[in-house]
Amino acid sequence: MDCRMIKSPGENTLAILNRRKGSGPRESLIKPDAIGLVQGKLIEMVCAADVAEKAVGVTVEDIKGSCPQNMIMLAIYGDTASVEAALNEIKKKENSRVW
Amino acid sequence: MDCRMIKSPGENTLAILNRRKGSGPRESLIKPDAIGLVQGKLIEMVCAADVAEKAVGVTVEDIKGSCPQNMIMLAIYGDTASVEAALNEIKKKENSRVW
Amino acid sequence: MDCRMIKSPGENTLAILNRRKGSGPRESLIKPDAIGLVQGKLIEMVCAADVAEKAVGVTVEDIKGSCPQNMIMLAIYGDTASVEAALNEIKKKENSRVW
Amino acid sequence: MDCRMIKSPGENTLAILNRRKGSGPRESLIKPDAIGLVQGKLIEMVCAADVAEKAVGVTVEDIKGSCPQNMIMLAIYGDTASVEAALNEIKKKENSRVW
Amino acid sequence: MDCRMIKSPGENTLAILNRRKGSGPRESLIKPDAIGLVQGKLIEMVCAADVAEKAVGVTVEDIKGSCPQNMIMLAIYGDTASVEAALNEIKKKENSRVW
Amino acid sequence: MDCRMIKSPGENTLAILNRRKGSGPRESLIKPDAIGLVQGKLIEMVCAADVAEKAVGVTVEDIKGSCPQNMIMLAIYGDTASVEAALNEIKKKENSRVW
Repeated sequence: MDCRMIKSPGENTLAILNRRKGSGPRESLIKPDAIGLVQGKLIEMVCAADVAEKAVGVTVEDIKGSCPQNMIMLAIYGDTASVEAALNEIKKKENSRVW
Repeated sequence: MDCRMIKSPGENTLAILNRRKGSGPRESLIKPDAIGLVQGKLIEMVCAADVAEKAVGVTVEDIKGSCPQNMIMLAIYGDTASVEAALNEIKKKENSRVW
Repeated sequence: MDCRMIKSPGENTLAILNRRKGSGPRESLIKPDAIGLVQGKLIEMVCAADVAEKAVGVTVEDIKGSCPQNMIMLAIYGDTASVEAALNEIKKKENSRVW
Repeated sequence: MDCRMIKSPGENTLAILNRRKGSGPRESLIKPDAIGLVQGKLIEMVCAADVAEKAVGVTVEDIKGSCPQNMIMLAIYGDTASVEAALNEIKKKENSRVW
Repeated sequence: MDCRMIKSPGENTLAILNRRKGSGPRESLIKPDAIGLVQGKLIEMVCAADVAEKAVGVTVEDIKGSCPQNMIMLAIYGDTASVEAALNEIKKKENSRVW
Repeated sequence: MDCRMIKSPGENTLAILNRRKGSGPRESLIKPDAIGLVQGKLIEMVCAADVAEKAVGVTVEDIKGSCPQNMIMLAIYGDTASVEAALNEIKKKENSRVW
């Protein structure tokens, strides 16, 4: 599982993500302070999405690949501290997994 | 084959799974106590689906993933004890397989 | 090439396979005693389909992945003894292949 | 590159191939004595298609597979001797390639 | 992650990229002095897109590839010095990454 | 990166390539003396397309896989000497690449 954070993401980068949202692209988009990105197997992404959803101050979106049924990346939108906390929580949960 | 369990899954996580159901997304969805996730080769998933279907107190859905050969996933909905029992049964059957 | 057999398959498992049939899903489906599953490369599947088709007492279906042009698994429907015989014949032919 | 031959192919096997033809499925299909199958990378398949097309007494069809990079397949229809000769010619050309 | 630069790209090469733009193909296209190409995992591409977007004198486009997991590509249009600077910045950021 | 050349390509082989052209299939097709084929990563194909486009006496087409957004192979049409020269130029440029 690969985790990254983009601080003050540019508009084009937000547009690339917006075009691939599982919930469909949106017309107007508030520009977040930071984006967290998580890429891995589908089963890892679903677990990470649940951890991020329960974190404070972030919004979670699944990002599709080329085909409509695909999900290959999570995008976590929020202020820098909240996104960083959510990514740390995801990595902690992933490492402490029993099976 | 990879097995995981999410306790008290969040609404966004349920929505991510709901959008990828093999039986099509549903309008209203009862929030389960837990979700079991099983990811592996298609042939493993079909066998796991059969084991889970014969388990007590769970509902099984096949989830469409990104790569047709190996990224399909099963979601097993139910109360925590039933989902855990179904996942244990799946792993037991998988390990005791002759061919 | 991976071969498996499910005895007394559940209705949901039959539905998962029915939704992915190469010949299209069917409205009414007689519940078979057993299902044989064969997964492998496309060239192996076509050869296995021919062996199974020439076996006695079984029906063969190719199962698609997410995309309509895909074929990734064979499902062999019939009574337990016939499905087992067909799977054994497939494995025998595969192992005795010259090229 | 993987080469195989099916003698007296069954109707269901012909139907599986017919549904995946690059030139589109056909209504009526003459049952051939044998089918040669060749699976490999797309660049190998195009070269093999050219060799088979120049062989005597066979018809060549490209078969769509599950993964666009490497799962395409060629089907070579004809009498047993002609299909066997075409497959041997394909393997000879492949092995004698300089680059 | 793989980075390359094409100086004075030909019209056909620009057309190949134009047909695969995430923002959709455009009717009229100004011919750039150079194109930078970056190929890697989706998560790497999104980060590289953000770095390139913040660079001076270049335009960034995401290019759809063949495999949703790893074949996406970025195209960076601009004058030769700006494209080279953007590619160097992308490689520098990638190598200095903590996690 | 894999390079090959077909001399005096057959009509069926030309049809297989014609059905997968990125610029769409054409009604009438002049039969070339030779076809050069180049298969590799998307970023390699775009660079090879630019080299081939700047070579003398050849036409370049990108060949798609099963999905409309895919590009997995280049086809270079022309007389035998020109196609051979273009393929040699592509291999020379690829080997002399700094990064």
